[in-house]
Amino acid sequence: MSSVQVACCQLAPVIGDLAANRDLVAAAVGAAAARGAAVVVLPELVTSGYAFADRAEARAAAEPADGPALTLWCRLAAEYGLVLVGGFCELDPDGDVRNSAAVVDPGGLRAVYRKTHLWDAERLIFTPGREAPPVVATAAGRIGVVICYDLEFPEWFRLPALAGAQLLCAPVNWPASPRPAGERPAEVVRVQAGAGVNRMFVAACDRVGPERGVDWVGGSVIVDPDGWPLADAGPTGDAVTITAGCRLDEADSKAVGGLSDIHADRRPELYGDVAR
Amino acid sequence: MSSVQVACCQLAPVIGDLAANRDLVAAAVGAAAARGAAVVVLPELVTSGYAFADRAEARAAAEPADGPALTLWCRLAAEYGLVLVGGFCELDPDGDVRNSAAVVDPGGLRAVYRKTHLWDAERLIFTPGREAPPVVATAAGRIGVVICYDLEFPEWFRLPALAGAQLLCAPVNWPASPRPAGERPAEVVRVQAGAGVNRMFVAACDRVGPERGVDWVGGSVIVDPDGWPLADAGPTGDAVTITAGCRLDEADSKAVGGLSDIHADRRPELYGDVAR
Repeated sequence: MSSVQVACCQLAPVIGDLAANRDLVAAAVGAAAARGAAVVVLPELVTSGYAFADRAEARAAAEPADGPALTLWCRLAAEYGLVLVGGFCELDPDGDVRNSAAVVDPGGLRAVYRKTHLWDAERLIFTPGREAPPVVATAAGRIGVVICYDLEFPEWFRLPALAGAQLLCAPVNWPASPRPAGERPAEVVRVQAGAGVNRMFVAACDRVGPERGVDWVGGSVIVDPDGWPLADAGPTGDAVTITAGCRLDEADSKAVGGLSDIHADRRPELYGDVAR
Repeated sequence: MSSVQVACCQLAPVIGDLAANRDLVAAAVGAAAARGAAVVVLPELVTSGYAFADRAEARAAAEPADGPALTLWCRLAAEYGLVLVGGFCELDPDGDVRNSAAVVDPGGLRAVYRKTHLWDAERLIFTPGREAPPVVATAAGRIGVVICYDLEFPEWFRLPALAGAQLLCAPVNWPASPRPAGERPAEVVRVQAGAGVNRMFVAACDRVGPERGVDWVGGSVIVDPDGWPLADAGPTGDAVTITAGCRLDEADSKAVGGLSDIHADRRPELYGDVAR
């Protein structure tokens, strides 16, 4: 398998302005495609913005998976021949509002994932998911999806890896927090570790643009199966697209030296207490 | 609770020289005690060295938990009034050879843990454990124990945290491997992430001193519950003792911002596939 160009479009969506956010995505995906991207990752809730005042405001910004945003994304994926993974504010078929992510490719909508671990006040806004992260076989490779705070739960990170994902795509909105000078964001450290212990590529796409008093890390990163960053957004907090060539088949081997295999060496029969 | 001084004594044991290794430990623990250490962590297999040619050589260097090494450790713990956690080559009551760690305090031997995830050729030498990491209530705080490669399995890292450990002590022998310039060792990144997602202190004590062609990271590190290193051994590969003051009660709160709690927000009912 040859190298696949993976892109994260670190954007600044405008809360509640669905049309502006569609335009933002269309421009960014076009530019990423021009740079050769075969997989484009977009931030969490890029259709709607994040810092909703309440459930009603989120509901007003929510749309179904066949609404205008994902219809556009499907058109972009077909036009440019790429896979798009991004977060959207979903009105699900039961009328519940979800913090969701979609995988679309030239064939259309391939999967919808609903965020399972809701951060802070999200639990007052969204209905949590209860389905495991999907792993979608695409022309670019096998792609898993989780959203933001999900990454902080190693059990959840593990599931798509065990299901064969080569690349885990994570739309995120990482709220800024203090860190020691010279350190990478804590969220990035956890992505590095999760990539390494699963020998899986990870592309986490953050947002920028302060919103109602919330500032963001702007920490988009693409990490290899050893856990080393291949590309990151740097410390500027700018809207930027990062890209990296990823030999996704490198994630098929879980060998880590000598007789060791980081998946085969697991002892799941002893892990019962983490699932209880 | 006041701050507890935690020390990691990064030593260079001599393979097969049990008496020399006892002397090494006695000197290091005395020096750490003089620096105020209340908890002292020693490397994996510090009684025996690591790179055994075969099972027979390991067996010849193994001793029971009431053998000379741990008898000395119990005396040191009592003399200096501290908790000692270190790795030893164990001849267990069934006659099997184990890669084990002991927790001793002024009251004597408190727990023996047997390494569960055996790295590379260790599986040809040792019998793997099948008991979860112990968590021991000591005068210094609640201390959990795992060994080296165990740290690469987030499920195993999780268990002592869920069982209430405030400080996870990890005797390790990290074999050296290449890494990009300016990067911390991958093993340290994983310790940082595991500490952060569990809000638990971690003290990993590595070894130095090339042994039969194996070189070591020399990456001993003490990490706080946010995942930031409080002390590390630096890049020199020297035998060195690092120390850090740890407010272990900070690990009792799993709050990570707003309504979020990194343990309470887990959804173990959805994690079944990691234990299957």
